[in-house]
Amino acid sequence: MSTDIARIRGEVCDLHAELVRYNLVVWTAGNVSARVPGENLLVIKPSGVGYDELTPENMIVCDLDGNVVEGDLSPSSDTAAHAYVYRHMPEVGGVVHTHSTYASAWAARGEPVPCVLTAMADEFGGEIPVGPFALIGDDSIGRGIVETLAGSNSPAVLMRNHGVFTIGKDAKAAVKAAVMAEDVARTVHLAREHGRPLPIEERDIASLYDRYQNVYGQSAKGETTA
Amino acid sequence: MSTDIARIRGEVCDLHAELVRYNLVVWTAGNVSARVPGENLLVIKPSGVGYDELTPENMIVCDLDGNVVEGDLSPSSDTAAHAYVYRHMPEVGGVVHTHSTYASAWAARGEPVPCVLTAMADEFGGEIPVGPFALIGDDSIGRGIVETLAGSNSPAVLMRNHGVFTIGKDAKAAVKAAVMAEDVARTVHLAREHGRPLPIEERDIASLYDRYQNVYGQSAKGETTA
Amino acid sequence: MSTDIARIRGEVCDLHAELVRYNLVVWTAGNVSARVPGENLLVIKPSGVGYDELTPENMIVCDLDGNVVEGDLSPSSDTAAHAYVYRHMPEVGGVVHTHSTYASAWAARGEPVPCVLTAMADEFGGEIPVGPFALIGDDSIGRGIVETLAGSNSPAVLMRNHGVFTIGKDAKAAVKAAVMAEDVARTVHLAREHGRPLPIEERDIASLYDRYQNVYGQSAKGETTA
Amino acid sequence: MSTDIARIRGEVCDLHAELVRYNLVVWTAGNVSARVPGENLLVIKPSGVGYDELTPENMIVCDLDGNVVEGDLSPSSDTAAHAYVYRHMPEVGGVVHTHSTYASAWAARGEPVPCVLTAMADEFGGEIPVGPFALIGDDSIGRGIVETLAGSNSPAVLMRNHGVFTIGKDAKAAVKAAVMAEDVARTVHLAREHGRPLPIEERDIASLYDRYQNVYGQSAKGETTA
Repeated sequence: MSTDIARIRGEVCDLHAELVRYNLVVWTAGNVSARVPGENLLVIKPSGVGYDELTPENMIVCDLDGNVVEGDLSPSSDTAAHAYVYRHMPEVGGVVHTHSTYASAWAARGEPVPCVLTAMADEFGGEIPVGPFALIGDDSIGRGIVETLAGSNSPAVLMRNHGVFTIGKDAKAAVKAAVMAEDVARTVHLAREHGRPLPIEERDIASLYDRYQNVYGQSAKGETTA
Repeated sequence: MSTDIARIRGEVCDLHAELVRYNLVVWTAGNVSARVPGENLLVIKPSGVGYDELTPENMIVCDLDGNVVEGDLSPSSDTAAHAYVYRHMPEVGGVVHTHSTYASAWAARGEPVPCVLTAMADEFGGEIPVGPFALIGDDSIGRGIVETLAGSNSPAVLMRNHGVFTIGKDAKAAVKAAVMAEDVARTVHLAREHGRPLPIEERDIASLYDRYQNVYGQSAKGETTA
Repeated sequence: MSTDIARIRGEVCDLHAELVRYNLVVWTAGNVSARVPGENLLVIKPSGVGYDELTPENMIVCDLDGNVVEGDLSPSSDTAAHAYVYRHMPEVGGVVHTHSTYASAWAARGEPVPCVLTAMADEFGGEIPVGPFALIGDDSIGRGIVETLAGSNSPAVLMRNHGVFTIGKDAKAAVKAAVMAEDVARTVHLAREHGRPLPIEERDIASLYDRYQNVYGQSAKGETTA
Repeated sequence: MSTDIARIRGEVCDLHAELVRYNLVVWTAGNVSARVPGENLLVIKPSGVGYDELTPENMIVCDLDGNVVEGDLSPSSDTAAHAYVYRHMPEVGGVVHTHSTYASAWAARGEPVPCVLTAMADEFGGEIPVGPFALIGDDSIGRGIVETLAGSNSPAVLMRNHGVFTIGKDAKAAVKAAVMAEDVARTVHLAREHGRPLPIEERDIASLYDRYQNVYGQSAKGETTA
C-alpha cells in the first residue's frame, strides 16, 4: 500500500503543474485528486497552498468520506465533492476541479457547451452538460456531479455559477479532460460570436467518439497518452 | 524597526513578480505597497522602473503623507493614493494598483462587476464596485477608493476610466485580490457575451463569503495562503 | 537516404515546439510532417504522445500510403490525410494540422477568413478557404484538403467543424503558415466584433502577394526565413 | 561613430525581445529601428530573420534613404518607411512596426482608438489616429505615418488594413509606445463589447498628458524608464 500512496502523491503533485501550464487556474483555485487503487483512499491538494509550494510530501491522504488519514495541512475545501465522486463512481480514478475561464463563463449562464467540433466529439461524445447550483458544505456538489454525468458520455460537468469538474480512469485522464474542456469551451464561445456554429450529426458524433475512445493513441483507450 | 523595513522591502519587491506572472501589468504600469507594522511608514515601488529592475534596495520608504523617508528614486506616482488609504483604513496592510485588462474595461464603462460566480462570492462578498473619475495630483483618488470601499465587502474597487485598486491585511492579500479581480472580471465579461449570467441569491453570496473568510485555507482567514 | 531521414526526423521533432510556442495546440492535438526528398516517404509525429516527450528517434517514418516503415509507435491518427496530400501535391514538402482556437472557430461556422489585412494578402494571397466536413478513417479529409487548396493561393485550409491544415515547400513553411493562419484568424475575428473590416482591392491583394512571395526575406521565396 | 553604431546595434537587437515578451509579434513580422545620433544612419532588423536568431552583428545599418551601409543580409522590408520617418521627423530617434492583434483589428476597420482611459491620456494625449491604406514599394507608407502623426499628440499611428507604427525619442520609447498601444487597443476593444465607454473630458486628457510627459518617472520625460 505505502508504495502506491508514495507514487500517487508524486503524480497528484506533478499534475497540478499541467493546470498552471494550460492557464486553468490562478492563485490556489483548482485541484487534482487520485484514488489509491484497491484502497478506500484518495490523495488531494492541501487547501490554499500555492502551486509552486506543492510537494509529494504535502499532498493529503483522505478516506472516501473526506477524513484526513495522512497529512499535516487541511485538505482542499473541495475534498467532500471529490470523495463523493469516488464513493459513487467506482470506475473513476481521478478527479479535477478548476474555475477555468471559458468553461466557467458557460457555467455562469448555466448553458451546456454544444458539440460542434470533431475534437469535442472525440473527447466528450456530445455536449458538456451543466449541473445544479450547489453550496459547499454538504453532499450537494458531489451529488450534482454524479447525477449530471450519469446520463452523459462527457468526462466534464459545468457546475452552475461555479466552474468545471472532470473525471478519468486516472488523474492524468481527468487533467486531460480539464484541458480539453477549456479548449473547446473557448473555441465554441468564439465561434458563436459571429454566427451559428454548424451542427455535427448525432451519428457522426457517435462514430468519432467510438473511434477515439478505442483506437487513438498508443493503447486501446484515448486517455492513455504518454 | 529596521528589521521590519528590510523584510517588507523584500516582500514588496517580490510581490511585483506576481503582477507580471498573472499578466496584470505591462511595462511599468502597476504597483504594490505595504504598511510597516507599528510605524507611520509604507514601502512602495519606485516610479517608472521596470519589473526586472526591482530590488529590495530600490524600493522606496515613505511616511503616510507620501514623503520619501528612505530611497534615492522617486516613489510611484500613485503613492499619494496608497498613503491616503493607509491613513484612513488602519486595518489595511497592503495596497495594489493595476490597469489589468478586463477590470479596466469594466472601469472604462463605469460598471461594477456583478457577483455571478461562487469564487467571486468567496473573495469579494458581492459585486466589485466602481469609484469616481479622479485626476492624479491631490487626494481625490485616495478619497474615491476609501469612500467606495466603505460600503462594500469587496477588497477591490474599479476607478472609473482608470484601473483597479485592491487592499488586504498585508501586501500578499492585496495582490491576491488583484489577481482574483482580473480573473472574475474576465469570466463575467465573457459570460455576458452570449446572454445573461444567472444571478446568485443574496443569502447564498453571504453564506459563501462567510465560509471563505473564516474557514478556507490553513488558517482562520481566506487571505492566508502559503 | 538514411542521412536525409535522420535530418528530417530532427526537423519534424523540433518544429512541434513552434506549435507549442505559439499556443496552436493543447495536450497532443496537433502534428507536423515532412516529405523525405526523393523518396516516397514521410516523417510524422507519433499518435497521442505529449510534445515534451518528442525526440527525433520516436518520430515515425511512413510510406505515402501511410504504412509505417520505421518506428515502434503508431503514427498520428491524421497520417492518412498527410499522406494523401503528399501523393497528390508533389510540390508540397511539409504539412501541419492543428485545432488552433480562432481558425477552428471560423471552421466551426464553415466560414472562410476574408482577406482584410496586408499580412494576410502577403502570406495567403486572398481568403483562407473552407473544406468539407469529413470523418477520419478514409481519404475524405485528404481529398477535402487537396480539392479546396486547388483553386486557392492559400497554404491553409479550414476543415469544417474540425481545424486547420497547412502546406509548404518544407515543414518549416507549413508551420509558418499555421502560425500566420491563427494570427490573421484572430485579428479578423476581433476586427469584426465592432463593425465591418474595410475590404482590400483585389489588385492590391495580388500585388502584395506577388511581392511577398518573390522579394521578402533573404532569398527568393517568402517562406524562407532563417 | 563606430562606438555609437556598436551600442545601437546592441540596443536595437535587444529591444526586439520586448516585442516577443509582450506578444506583439509572431514569426518575423515586426521590427525596431534606431537613428544613429549625429549621423544620417539608422540601424534596423534584417528581413525575415527569426527573433531567436537576432544578434547585434546581424543588425543592418542603412542610410536615411534606406540603402545598406553595413550588413550582409537584406534589411527589413519596412526599411523605407522607417527611413522616411527619420528624414522628415528630426526629433524621432526610434521607430517600431508591429501587427499586434488588437491594434491591427482597429486598423482593419480604419477606426481610431478613442481616449477613454487615463493611461491612454498619459501616453497618447488623445486618440490613436488612423493613417491611409498604402502599398509597400514607394514612399506612401512613410508619408502616411508622418502626415497622420503631424496633427496628433500620439506616438502611435494605425495604418489602415495593416498594423501599427510608433515613434519615440529613442528606440526604447518607441517600443514602449508599441506596448502601450496594444494594451489600450485591447482594453478599449473589450470595454466596447458591453456598452459605451464613458468619455474623458478634453481638459482632463490635456492635464493628464501634460503631467505624464513632464513629471512621471525618474527624469523629466515620461518615456525615460530604467
